[in-house]
Amino acid sequence: MTDKKTDFGEWYNETVEKAQLCDKRYPIKGMNVWTPYGWKLMTQIDAYIRREMVATGHDEVCFPLLIPQTEFNKEKEHIKGFDSEVYWVTKAGNNDLDIPLLLRPTSETAMYPMFSLWIRSHTDLPLKVFQIVNTFRYETKQTRAFMRVREIHFFESHTCHETEEDAQKQVEQDMVIMDNVAKELCLPYSMLVRTEWDKFPGAYYTVGIDTVMPSGRTLQLGSIHHYRTNFSKPYNITYEDDKGEHHYVHQTTYGMSERLLGAVVGVHADDKGLILPPAIAPVQVVIVPIFSKNNRDEIMAACKVVNAALQDTGFRSKVDDRDLRPGNKFFDWEMRGVPLRLELGGRDLESQVVTFARRDTGEKGTLDTNSLAPGVKLLLDTVAQNMLVKATQYQQEFVKEITTTEGMDSVPDGVILKFGWCGDPKCGHAFEDKYDMKILGTPYRKENWTGKCLMCGKEGIKPVYAARTM
Amino acid sequence: MTDKKTDFGEWYNETVEKAQLCDKRYPIKGMNVWTPYGWKLMTQIDAYIRREMVATGHDEVCFPLLIPQTEFNKEKEHIKGFDSEVYWVTKAGNNDLDIPLLLRPTSETAMYPMFSLWIRSHTDLPLKVFQIVNTFRYETKQTRAFMRVREIHFFESHTCHETEEDAQKQVEQDMVIMDNVAKELCLPYSMLVRTEWDKFPGAYYTVGIDTVMPSGRTLQLGSIHHYRTNFSKPYNITYEDDKGEHHYVHQTTYGMSERLLGAVVGVHADDKGLILPPAIAPVQVVIVPIFSKNNRDEIMAACKVVNAALQDTGFRSKVDDRDLRPGNKFFDWEMRGVPLRLELGGRDLESQVVTFARRDTGEKGTLDTNSLAPGVKLLLDTVAQNMLVKATQYQQEFVKEITTTEGMDSVPDGVILKFGWCGDPKCGHAFEDKYDMKILGTPYRKENWTGKCLMCGKEGIKPVYAARTM
Repeated sequence: MTDKKTDFGEWYNETVEKAQLCDKRYPIKGMNVWTPYGWKLMTQIDAYIRREMVATGHDEVCFPLLIPQTEFNKEKEHIKGFDSEVYWVTKAGNNDLDIPLLLRPTSETAMYPMFSLWIRSHTDLPLKVFQIVNTFRYETKQTRAFMRVREIHFFESHTCHETEEDAQKQVEQDMVIMDNVAKELCLPYSMLVRTEWDKFPGAYYTVGIDTVMPSGRTLQLGSIHHYRTNFSKPYNITYEDDKGEHHYVHQTTYGMSERLLGAVVGVHADDKGLILPPAIAPVQVVIVPIFSKNNRDEIMAACKVVNAALQDTGFRSKVDDRDLRPGNKFFDWEMRGVPLRLELGGRDLESQVVTFARRDTGEKGTLDTNSLAPGVKLLLDTVAQNMLVKATQYQQEFVKEITTTEGMDSVPDGVILKFGWCGDPKCGHAFEDKYDMKILGTPYRKENWTGKCLMCGKEGIKPVYAARTM
Repeated sequence: MTDKKTDFGEWYNETVEKAQLCDKRYPIKGMNVWTPYGWKLMTQIDAYIRREMVATGHDEVCFPLLIPQTEFNKEKEHIKGFDSEVYWVTKAGNNDLDIPLLLRPTSETAMYPMFSLWIRSHTDLPLKVFQIVNTFRYETKQTRAFMRVREIHFFESHTCHETEEDAQKQVEQDMVIMDNVAKELCLPYSMLVRTEWDKFPGAYYTVGIDTVMPSGRTLQLGSIHHYRTNFSKPYNITYEDDKGEHHYVHQTTYGMSERLLGAVVGVHADDKGLILPPAIAPVQVVIVPIFSKNNRDEIMAACKVVNAALQDTGFRSKVDDRDLRPGNKFFDWEMRGVPLRLELGGRDLESQVVTFARRDTGEKGTLDTNSLAPGVKLLLDTVAQNMLVKATQYQQEFVKEITTTEGMDSVPDGVILKFGWCGDPKCGHAFEDKYDMKILGTPYRKENWTGKCLMCGKEGIKPVYAARTM
């Protein structure tokens, strides 16, 4: 087994495979099979996203996968951005199609012709919908499970508003949603306004949501876009205000994907296997009976009592009654990332305790049998908090603030740079080309920061972050 | 509004549209947009299917949408059955693909190459998986929402077993699952072994699950297939038994689709709109305040108490506090099929009752405020039972048993025939061609029945049912 520090990429692939999250042997590169354990994790993440969306007044919908070329062609920037990576359906049965159909890379061009029919008056606004669907991008770069695939398990919300300000408020709400979801996954993240040349094709501006892999490369977890009227004009999405005047709607979108699961693996797992955030672990607590001579029935009965008590309190727990040695069971559940293991043997039974082992730190201790459920709750909460704190500290250590490029010929992998940039694309491109890094953007929330442009020396400008990306 | 009896087809389309279950204006024929209300109903149906599958030891998976032509071509009968209705991806970005990819019409040819890798030993069996995904068929017949579409919301389970008998037991289990799901939807159905020329391409035999529309045409809700080793041979899915010998696995599949929702609309709805089975209604109980002078606050407060009491007991209830007249609210909720309406006005409040109105029968009455939740439970159970009984009686009335074709030149629409058939395809085809009907098949459960073949007069044979289909 490769270790995480030596070769992150290889370690990641092995960890995904060992934990049986997906099967990459499907005969199309970058299109993997979601096997049961991976799919359970993904749908649990989906459930949190769905909860947040419903709580903020979004309706779930499901649009067709295929989009006619004629609809796709309406927004010029958007086509340019996706043209090289769409899959085309050109034949059905034995017929060549008159109008080729594309597999959605994202659903703007599927939804907006319908929005134009659905929205008539200001009373139809805001319109807020989301869907969780499969999308497709013909990746030419090397694929990697969950991080860069050709069939993507995708979340997208789309909203329409009366004014630019209303749309802006939606962007802010999306950020709260992101924060709530990221907390369940114990994932640190940053919100950076992307450069003009890196924004979503057709957007007014894009906020990228990034986390950092242990290799120091960043992974985009999602993005939030303000479109202003850039799409409502070509798709003719207008509303009548209370004075009878017609206006184009202002739109936003918010997208996330299976990369959230990729990030959970990459950020939290260790050389023993997965470490799952308690919120998404299909099994949160595994109970392993430790038999000694002649006490098998007694121990099994006690394990079942413990399990029932935990399940009654709402925990996802399980007794591992397989005919295996305890050590093999420990190994197995550690690989699958179960956050808390309970062991119950003769001595535990006598002392009216159970022994616990935390997956995140390996810490062991005992819990009183008569306050088991509150004890488990406290432990799982502590595990979640620790996972987030640890990951946050780890990620921050990659960031290095610089004020000059003097003597800097190259930047090694594993460094995220923070520096001033005047905003001129010329300076930006010059930096990116010279150091083979990407400018991730400037913090969405204003920081108390002053400095000069790293390239041209101009003063009074904003900080940006630059990194190499997964 | 067209009425259900006069023109079922037109009535169905209007009912779907009025209840806003989907939007058919999407610019590809037969690919409709799932709007929020329809999608809520569909995902609630999915939840019951998922519950049944998990309870019977099936693992949920998700396979890629695209299938390489090379894999698709391995089972000859299967290709013949689907060749004329698959969509082909031939281009990605600006490249022509070396091997064309097809959009799954069903997932045998996606899954079985992987099963061949997953299964090694008898300890890997049975393998039981299912998925709920979008599938595609290039329909050339007239499309109809939920009943005949080109992008299909689809459920499919696939199982592998050591022996033909084990596979046969799975078929029986699938039938129990079907029964449990159909009960939640208050849908009567029949299980008929399809004719050889109508079975699933590649199957050993197919059991079709049909229900009857008010027009007397049947609608296939799903099907269960026993494949024997017909697919495991071309896909080389083998296992080693405990003596070290290798055998091909025996396989079954079970498929259902959004037609379940189409059937709920077609079977239960009336000229006022939907009538939803309580199990899937997004709102099971709507509470309408009936204001008179100066009692608005008092009534609203009482409605909220009722609503809280119902929600605490686990009902999906809602107070309609919109600024509309009660009659308009009644109209609205009737259209959306809410099974139970409660009204609360000044007089109800005085008498400590709420007035109820059942959607299925229109029956009105009162419930005591102090035993509201049990009263509502009883009413909803009664509604569900009545819906199933009524639909069952209605469907049975279409069936007409005949022993001779003497004097029968044609069969009018709205008749399902039961008669004897010797099993010879010649007699079967002759009947189908002459009367423009389809032989649905012979009952899976043996009936105590004797008779002669309607066409050739041979004795001691099985009964079959024949109908026109949706």
